Amino acid sequence: MAINTILMDFKVNEPAKLDSGSNIQTDVHQVLEQFIPGLNMHMMQDCGPDGILILWSGPRSCLVTLRAFRGPGLISISIEYYRGEEEDALLSFDQVRTIESLLIPKLNSIRSHKYPAFKRGGILNRYLVSSDERVLEYDFDKLLFEEKTAHQKVQIYHSPTFGNMLVLDDLQNLADSDIIYTETLMQRGKENYEGKEVLILGGGDGALLWELLKEKPKFVTMLEIDDVVMQSCKKYLRNSCGTCLDNYNGENYKIIVADCVQWLDKYITDGTKFDYVFGDLTDIPLSSTPQGEIWDFIRLILNKALKVLNSTGKFMTHGNGISCPTALAMYEEQLKKLETPVDFSRDHAFVPSFMEDWVFYQFNCTSSCLH
Amino acid sequence: MAINTILMDFKVNEPAKLDSGSNIQTDVHQVLEQFIPGLNMHMMQDCGPDGILILWSGPRSCLVTLRAFRGPGLISISIEYYRGEEEDALLSFDQVRTIESLLIPKLNSIRSHKYPAFKRGGILNRYLVSSDERVLEYDFDKLLFEEKTAHQKVQIYHSPTFGNMLVLDDLQNLADSDIIYTETLMQRGKENYEGKEVLILGGGDGALLWELLKEKPKFVTMLEIDDVVMQSCKKYLRNSCGTCLDNYNGENYKIIVADCVQWLDKYITDGTKFDYVFGDLTDIPLSSTPQGEIWDFIRLILNKALKVLNSTGKFMTHGNGISCPTALAMYEEQLKKLETPVDFSRDHAFVPSFMEDWVFYQFNCTSSCLH
Repeated sequence: MAINTILMDFKVNEPAKLDSGSNIQTDVHQVLEQFIPGLNMHMMQDCGPDGILILWSGPRSCLVTLRAFRGPGLISISIEYYRGEEEDALLSFDQVRTIESLLIPKLNSIRSHKYPAFKRGGILNRYLVSSDERVLEYDFDKLLFEEKTAHQKVQIYHSPTFGNMLVLDDLQNLADSDIIYTETLMQRGKENYEGKEVLILGGGDGALLWELLKEKPKFVTMLEIDDVVMQSCKKYLRNSCGTCLDNYNGENYKIIVADCVQWLDKYITDGTKFDYVFGDLTDIPLSSTPQGEIWDFIRLILNKALKVLNSTGKFMTHGNGISCPTALAMYEEQLKKLETPVDFSRDHAFVPSFMEDWVFYQFNCTSSCLH
Repeated sequence: MAINTILMDFKVNEPAKLDSGSNIQTDVHQVLEQFIPGLNMHMMQDCGPDGILILWSGPRSCLVTLRAFRGPGLISISIEYYRGEEEDALLSFDQVRTIESLLIPKLNSIRSHKYPAFKRGGILNRYLVSSDERVLEYDFDKLLFEEKTAHQKVQIYHSPTFGNMLVLDDLQNLADSDIIYTETLMQRGKENYEGKEVLILGGGDGALLWELLKEKPKFVTMLEIDDVVMQSCKKYLRNSCGTCLDNYNGENYKIIVADCVQWLDKYITDGTKFDYVFGDLTDIPLSSTPQGEIWDFIRLILNKALKVLNSTGKFMTHGNGISCPTALAMYEEQLKKLETPVDFSRDHAFVPSFMEDWVFYQFNCTSSCLH
């Protein structure tokens, strides 16, 4: 059950076409009522420079809104109705296509577009956004898990395309399809983890830990703040995390449910060092205006992480979508402001469930780096 | 320049909340006017069982439409305005997020969702659909080529994520990122094309021809009906087609601009045979109700193609998204109705620019197949 909203738009070549609302009313109504019998005009207003506004109402709480923007010569139409659990769609996408093709000659339109219905307000939300705020509709068919924790909203969906998929606060995190994410993050084949001490900050889905364990490290410590993420991934993301979340104290690894900042401070005080530290925490913020607190947090983590690396150590982390060059540049700006200077390299990979190309960073302390 | 439409929706737990339109009007207006100064109520109507309808209007031709659906306890809001070429957005997505968080307590909402603005009516359309009719917003930043031919609308967009991308009649066709498409279609590494006679039906982007030529075939013949596709791909899709579209008569290939049906008939009459025939024509129709003509066309092509295969020959083609099990099943149904019986195998791959997993078919004539 959901509100269905169908959007269409038409570019009109002759501004004269938009002179009279009543012509548009008649033309559009004639087409629409073939598909929505019982549709009646509810209201029509000429709003002067703001154009024309026409409302029609019909069965199934259907409201059709038409706006004609005189300046740019554009017409927008929205068809909105309520679709109950067992009800058929009021209009199929094929019918929407037909409506478009019938309206084009009536409106003398030179360019037009239609969208499949947006399904709104249901239990299962299928719409997420990309790193650069584009709308992506997923083929989710089941919500397997949902819980609001003290830290975030944790959801696991099933998608025929991507398998089970972890979504945190409406952000794509990791799906069954995304081994490339973990392999690019850890630079599999380029880095040698055998016999190494590794620290993971975050990483609650368990995928990084699971893949690292295959490389025979000496010991991996993982610091994850949200146990609900791990418990849900243990159940629904086993394709990615294997058995490593079944036991928080393994032979050559341990998982600590804690805030990583406190533990980093403890390691700094103790003088504990690692060969690799992974930053697998929250995403880089998108906004191009510096959002003080978030960048401060990123620098805070980086400064502390670099202090627990041994002299040949590396810090590896995920960046952002390549569609966000501004956010990536700002992240790289932050690196110049760190207490110890760093060299960095970048890699990228198309992550299926993100539906975009993602950037990953690898940091080396430079020769001047003090330990 | 485009019409921007921002959709939000709220599930309300207490139906009593929806009793009075004027309470909702006051609450929502109070939040919205912080972000859209000068927003005024334009109309409010109680439509009984159909719920409440409120319109506000404001600067920049802004019209806000709110509908409260009493039965399911849902509220939908649409904020629509015109954004000129050089103008800032009326609301950033961060502001939309803030509006959502302010409205949740006011509306006693237990579930809510917001979408980034749909940018409608501009020259560059960024919205395409998946095989199962989901909305996908691409990061297109340039329309490199557009022409309406006698056969279809041919467009080439540039995307930072996928590179240059061929779009035919608003359907994703092939992008720079999609070598996996061609490699899965041709089953690279599993089939041996060396010294073989190959026929391509369609394939106007040139990618299949280009990759096949690397495998040292004896000769490849390509039958493509739309020269505009080839001319535009030659210019903008060189990453995929290399130099093979520069000359339609190569050393070991030729491209014939023609309807493949006529040529298939000619080959059948002549007794010309091929080791491989590729079907790289229009997509399988999505609809689950048999659309007579389209399935007839698919069977027609298959029947003719099988007749020009030699006794160990194979027919290879693309199928549909795995999100369309019904359409795939119907396609496989058609195979039982062919004049000569076929065995088939399936492969699949995630095609980056399609943003979905795609199915490919390989057909063998069965032992009973007559030649």
